Amino acid sequence: MRRSRRQDIGVEPVAGNGLLDRRIFLAGGAALAAGTTAQAEPLATESWSRVPGAGFVPYGQPSRFESKVGRIFASAPGTTGTGAARTPLHLIDGLITPNGLHFERSHSGIPDIDPDAHRLLIHGLVRRPLVFTLEALARYPMESRITFLECAGNGQLLNAREPAQANVQALQGLVSCAEWTGVRLAALLQEAGVDPRASWILAEGADAAGMSRSAPLAKAMDDALIALYQNGERVRPSNGYPMRLLLPGFEGNMNVKWLRRIKVTDTPTMTKDETSKYTILQSSGKALQFVFPMEAKSLITRPSPGLTMKGAGLYEISGLAWSGYGKVAKVEVSADGGKSWAAAALAEPVLSRALTRFRMPWRWDGGEAVLQSRATDETGYVQPTRSELLARRGPNGVYHHNGIMSWSVAPGGELKHAYA
Amino acid sequence: MRRSRRQDIGVEPVAGNGLLDRRIFLAGGAALAAGTTAQAEPLATESWSRVPGAGFVPYGQPSRFESKVGRIFASAPGTTGTGAARTPLHLIDGLITPNGLHFERSHSGIPDIDPDAHRLLIHGLVRRPLVFTLEALARYPMESRITFLECAGNGQLLNAREPAQANVQALQGLVSCAEWTGVRLAALLQEAGVDPRASWILAEGADAAGMSRSAPLAKAMDDALIALYQNGERVRPSNGYPMRLLLPGFEGNMNVKWLRRIKVTDTPTMTKDETSKYTILQSSGKALQFVFPMEAKSLITRPSPGLTMKGAGLYEISGLAWSGYGKVAKVEVSADGGKSWAAAALAEPVLSRALTRFRMPWRWDGGEAVLQSRATDETGYVQPTRSELLARRGPNGVYHHNGIMSWSVAPGGELKHAYA
Repeated sequence: MRRSRRQDIGVEPVAGNGLLDRRIFLAGGAALAAGTTAQAEPLATESWSRVPGAGFVPYGQPSRFESKVGRIFASAPGTTGTGAARTPLHLIDGLITPNGLHFERSHSGIPDIDPDAHRLLIHGLVRRPLVFTLEALARYPMESRITFLECAGNGQLLNAREPAQANVQALQGLVSCAEWTGVRLAALLQEAGVDPRASWILAEGADAAGMSRSAPLAKAMDDALIALYQNGERVRPSNGYPMRLLLPGFEGNMNVKWLRRIKVTDTPTMTKDETSKYTILQSSGKALQFVFPMEAKSLITRPSPGLTMKGAGLYEISGLAWSGYGKVAKVEVSADGGKSWAAAALAEPVLSRALTRFRMPWRWDGGEAVLQSRATDETGYVQPTRSELLARRGPNGVYHHNGIMSWSVAPGGELKHAYA
Repeated sequence: MRRSRRQDIGVEPVAGNGLLDRRIFLAGGAALAAGTTAQAEPLATESWSRVPGAGFVPYGQPSRFESKVGRIFASAPGTTGTGAARTPLHLIDGLITPNGLHFERSHSGIPDIDPDAHRLLIHGLVRRPLVFTLEALARYPMESRITFLECAGNGQLLNAREPAQANVQALQGLVSCAEWTGVRLAALLQEAGVDPRASWILAEGADAAGMSRSAPLAKAMDDALIALYQNGERVRPSNGYPMRLLLPGFEGNMNVKWLRRIKVTDTPTMTKDETSKYTILQSSGKALQFVFPMEAKSLITRPSPGLTMKGAGLYEISGLAWSGYGKVAKVEVSADGGKSWAAAALAEPVLSRALTRFRMPWRWDGGEAVLQSRATDETGYVQPTRSELLARRGPNGVYHHNGIMSWSVAPGGELKHAYA
């Protein structure tokens, strides 16, 4: 009965195994019938409607019923803060990552910095070395960028021979998106007076690891920020309080947290953090160094492993796409393991170097399926398959894994990470 | 010395009392010299750089040094939760309000709702009344809107005869902005089947106040959402967990929190919440009822009362503008109490019915000044002066006060709320 009615109003498939034209929802033809008729379940007056609720607090928190929505984390043996905490991508929605759930990668824990004592030094190949207090920086004009950050090592489990049985948080949770606000690094460098011989900067953090990376001066003069605010409030301790470097689109660790020093140089500094790691091994045996922007990538967050589907019918396939090279131009979705594809809807606003939410209606017939997504960015770059990527990189890769991911759907509705 | 050098590089005023062309920052001619020369203050290695930092937690919090950044609140006598909590607009920046600081207006406190027990009923003039669980709603396609919410009573202290000596948080802190994600109300209404006689809806909350408002069916079918997520995570308890109605641009209280019921009707229901309050008294003695969108408005958040300026020189004037009728088209700033104006820069993205950050460079000469901002929205509507508004409304107004605000600057750098 229901199926024939849906066909009457023109719900046509756009690709194999049940992918539907996204306009069905606009046309009002969804007919999910997920709601129960009111006769079957009258509305109760619950206990919380009978008594006055809680009062106000200065700084709010999530509901106690959401305690399962948290980051998962692991540290290196013998440490408490050398490791990473991962965003629960399967439990959040939209474009912005709330500050409490933004991913974190730390090399020696989160320093407890007194903002009044913290200083930012700009020196090296400059006419006039400068030291800034937070108060001095607050005098400068600010700018905002809604931008993703992704750890260079995000998705590295996809280098494994067999598909790791884990959810999207464990597999890909080292990517998040926030509105960052701060002072353009270019303004500070101009004030210091950059020497014409300069072509690099070194950025150093105030954590005990002294995390340090080199970056091209051109990026520093282009869109780099000294970020002071994250989604409106001061940058969180785990994300660099009281200030971090923001290099939009560049791999996460270059966006140096707890920033204390920018040195203007004529060559890269070759710090421990850019020679012992964050290089990309190729199948030739040689490694690429200084691959800065994160390549276009996408993943389906719902449904995904752990979010078992309950019964055949209409579902929304929803996920995230991004590119360190600019805007996401297109995301295609497949429900048959890549045999056929259809374009998903991209949620506005689609911003350069920000996470972009994509959505695609799907009529699951209750049978087997393999869900995939494939991003194309505005440069025309297309997210590769995992096997294409491994052919170039060989079996020992770690960083910048942006291969297409697959979730296999079993007839009972259970989803698993798969290679397809 | 410094002044003549700035003049050399062509920093020209654009309006009276020191307002400067915003391009000076892009041209690198700011020469704030707010940084100290490095020789004068060498970089110290602080205690937090010498020891490993803190470990990971599932859900992060702001730095302990930011404990002053909180909402201020007041409740009606004998209650703990009938009142409002205000966003510290002077201490945040950017476009997004972090969830912990989003303003709140509650009529009987914050109910502690079990999401598994909560239901949403859609009934009234529909073919088939429906009840939705949260799990049922999660099957529907989602959409996101980055939109402001403003309490209808925000700024009501500006109706007072003398300028209240308070800061922007106390005067105007009942406005915030978030990315809201949820299900289009239109999809649910279509599924229930709206009777052709219907032209209104009633929305009711599950709080003890049973907060209820009528809204036009046209708005419900246009851009209304049943919002489930706020800046990525589940809607906060103080903002309607597990679901609220979102009517972009409409006065805050209509975006009914803890939403339990939508009744489709042929007339407004005339609830207590729309007859005993939220009407707009005019100087004629008559009151306007059902004025839904919030009119264009702007305010300067930095500098503002409490943020005393330290010494003459370059500052950034920064603030927020919004309109319930669409996008902000222009924000003008005055430093001489409205005698002369110049257009501020609008931070991208400028989104319909979202807060828009504006910025304007200002060279304060250390003397007296009166800072004002004036918003124009895409319909051509211009934010009125306070006296224009009061002439229309008379002296007993409460709601929808969107008059131009003034901060007076004293020679010592102290700012005060003023009428100008």
